[in-house]
Amino acid sequence: MNQEKLRKAGRSLLLPLVGLLVRVGVSAFAVTVFGLAVTAVAAWLIWEGSYIPGAVVLIFGSVLDAVDGEIARRRQAVSKSGAVLDSSCDRIGETLILGALLAGTAGASHPSLVYLVPAALGGSFMVSYIRARAEGVGLSCSVGILTRTERLVLLIAGIVASGLWDDRAAVIMLAVLAAGAWITVVQRLVKVMSDGRGVPLDGK
Amino acid sequence: MNQEKLRKAGRSLLLPLVGLLVRVGVSAFAVTVFGLAVTAVAAWLIWEGSYIPGAVVLIFGSVLDAVDGEIARRRQAVSKSGAVLDSSCDRIGETLILGALLAGTAGASHPSLVYLVPAALGGSFMVSYIRARAEGVGLSCSVGILTRTERLVLLIAGIVASGLWDDRAAVIMLAVLAAGAWITVVQRLVKVMSDGRGVPLDGK
Repeated sequence: MNQEKLRKAGRSLLLPLVGLLVRVGVSAFAVTVFGLAVTAVAAWLIWEGSYIPGAVVLIFGSVLDAVDGEIARRRQAVSKSGAVLDSSCDRIGETLILGALLAGTAGASHPSLVYLVPAALGGSFMVSYIRARAEGVGLSCSVGILTRTERLVLLIAGIVASGLWDDRAAVIMLAVLAAGAWITVVQRLVKVMSDGRGVPLDGK
Repeated sequence: MNQEKLRKAGRSLLLPLVGLLVRVGVSAFAVTVFGLAVTAVAAWLIWEGSYIPGAVVLIFGSVLDAVDGEIARRRQAVSKSGAVLDSSCDRIGETLILGALLAGTAGASHPSLVYLVPAALGGSFMVSYIRARAEGVGLSCSVGILTRTERLVLLIAGIVASGLWDDRAAVIMLAVLAAGAWITVVQRLVKVMSDGRGVPLDGK
C-alpha cells in the first residue's frame, strides 16, 4: 500500500536521529514525555495565533513522538507500559492542539469552531479508541482513511496554511479532519461488526 | 467497595426492564443503537437550553445503555463486536452531550466553556482510552475516581441543576468533571507504569 511505503520512507529519514539519541543514552520514556512537553508548547503558540512557529514546534514534537518506539526497540526496552504511555501522550497532544485552536485566536474569530472542534476531537479519539478497544477483546482494527499519521499531517498542513494565508485554513482543516475521522469511525465499526459478530467474549 | 455496591444496587433496579426486553425479543444491538439515538435527542435538548427535558431523556438513554450488556448475557449473545460497539456508543454519547453544552446556549453565555469542554471531553476519553489500550496489551486498568458511571452521574446532576437553578451549574460540573477525569488519567497512567514497566510487549 502506498500510505505504508510513505510512512516507511519517513521513518528511514529519522534513523540518524534515532542513532544519535540511542548513543547519547536517552530512554524512550524520556523522549515520549519530552515530545508531549514540546507539543504543549506548540499548542500554546497556536493558541495565541503564532501559527508558523507553532507548526515548526509541533513538527519537532511529532518527530520525537515518531522515534520513541524505534529507540525502545534499539535499547531492547519495548514494554507494555511504554506502548500505553506512547499512545496516551499522542492523544493528550491531539487534545492540546485542537483545544488550543478552539480556545485561542482562531476560535475567537470563527464561531463555527464550537461545532468543529468537538467533532474533530471526538472523531480523532474515536478512531484510536475503537482500535484499542478492539485489540482489548482480541480483534485487530487499523483500517480507515484517517489514522494517526494522516491526522497529524492534516493538522500541520492546516496550521501552516493558517500562518501563510488566514486562519480560515484552520476552519477548513478542522472540517476535513472531523469528516474524515467520522468516516474512519464508521469504517472501523463496520470491520469490528463483521470480524467480531457472534464471536463469544471470553471471561466476561 | 462502596461504589461497586451502589452500582450493583442500581443494576438490580433495572432487572425488570431487562426481563421485559428479553421476553419481547429485542436484541442487545438494537438497545445499544437506540440508546445512542435517545442520547442524541438529549444532546439536542441540552443544546437549545431545555435542561430538565434533556436530563430526563439522557437518563432514559443511559438506562438503555446500562441494560444492553445484561440483555446480551440473558440471550447468550455476548460477543466481541457487541462489547466494542457498546463502549464506542458510550463515548459517542459523551461527545454529543459535552459538544452540545459548548455549542448551545450554555456555551454562548459562558466563554470559559471553550477551555472546560475540551478539557472535560479529552479527559473523559483519556480515562476510557487508557483502560482500553492497557487491556489491548494484556494489562488491566479500571482504577480511578471518575470512571464512566461517576462521570454520567456528574453530567446528569449538572444538567438537572442547570435547569432548576442556572446554567452556571453546568460550568461548575464541567470544571469538576475535567479535574476529576484528569486526576483519573494520572491514577491510571501510574498503575500502567507500575504494572507494565519492563514487561516485554510480545509480537511488536
